[in-house]
Amino acid sequence: MGSQFMPFALDARLERDTRAVLSLGLCTLRLMDDRRWPWLILVPQRPGMREIFDLTPLDQAMLSFETTLVAETLARVTSCTKINTGALGNIVEQLHVHVVARSTGDANWPGPVWGHGVREPHDDASAERLIAQLRSAF
Amino acid sequence: MGSQFMPFALDARLERDTRAVLSLGLCTLRLMDDRRWPWLILVPQRPGMREIFDLTPLDQAMLSFETTLVAETLARVTSCTKINTGALGNIVEQLHVHVVARSTGDANWPGPVWGHGVREPHDDASAERLIAQLRSAF
Repeated sequence: MGSQFMPFALDARLERDTRAVLSLGLCTLRLMDDRRWPWLILVPQRPGMREIFDLTPLDQAMLSFETTLVAETLARVTSCTKINTGALGNIVEQLHVHVVARSTGDANWPGPVWGHGVREPHDDASAERLIAQLRSAF
Repeated sequence: MGSQFMPFALDARLERDTRAVLSLGLCTLRLMDDRRWPWLILVPQRPGMREIFDLTPLDQAMLSFETTLVAETLARVTSCTKINTGALGNIVEQLHVHVVARSTGDANWPGPVWGHGVREPHDDASAERLIAQLRSAF
């Protein structure tokens, strides 16, 4: 059975390391459970995708639109210095796009967030506060 | 004078660290002069841009289209394991998008290319060979 006929299911590692924020048209939006940086992840709800170019042209356009929307919103909510976006997928195969709010002097600034140190989970209260802020900003 | 009236000029550090490949509709495409990975950089030829959401909606759509085209072409030319794309800009402010061909076991695999070690320039012959391959693949 081709992967396009399978239901979409969030990768187990993404499920474990992130918290639900909201559902966009194409993507489910998740908060990376790492208090070192405000870090969002978009996951296109299409099964079997690894690369952005695996998506249909329409889905590619949607992903681009939703990524920009998320980046603008995150920048507004955090007043960060710079948005970092990336699609790597060297570890988690399921296609996902990172949108991270970076600020001068944050952990590993000006280096990347990926591969730096060990994830530091939010406490529930701080995660819920950030998620509530984001939900009302969208 | 608003930045939209200034001519576009490639950032001095990008100029120094990369080699010209070709000009796309919106972006100039450059090869990062680092033989550790096949690494391309798209630079939208618009002055004063820092974030993808600083671009007009049409330019955002063009950038998304050109990034996908570059990613597909680089994947085909290199037979890599995974394409990594990213827009960071924590060091070089001018908006630019990285498209990197990653292969199992390459330098820092499965970690990111950004911030890893020191750039290892190509010799002219190997750079020109890769650039010629890419030009004929587009």
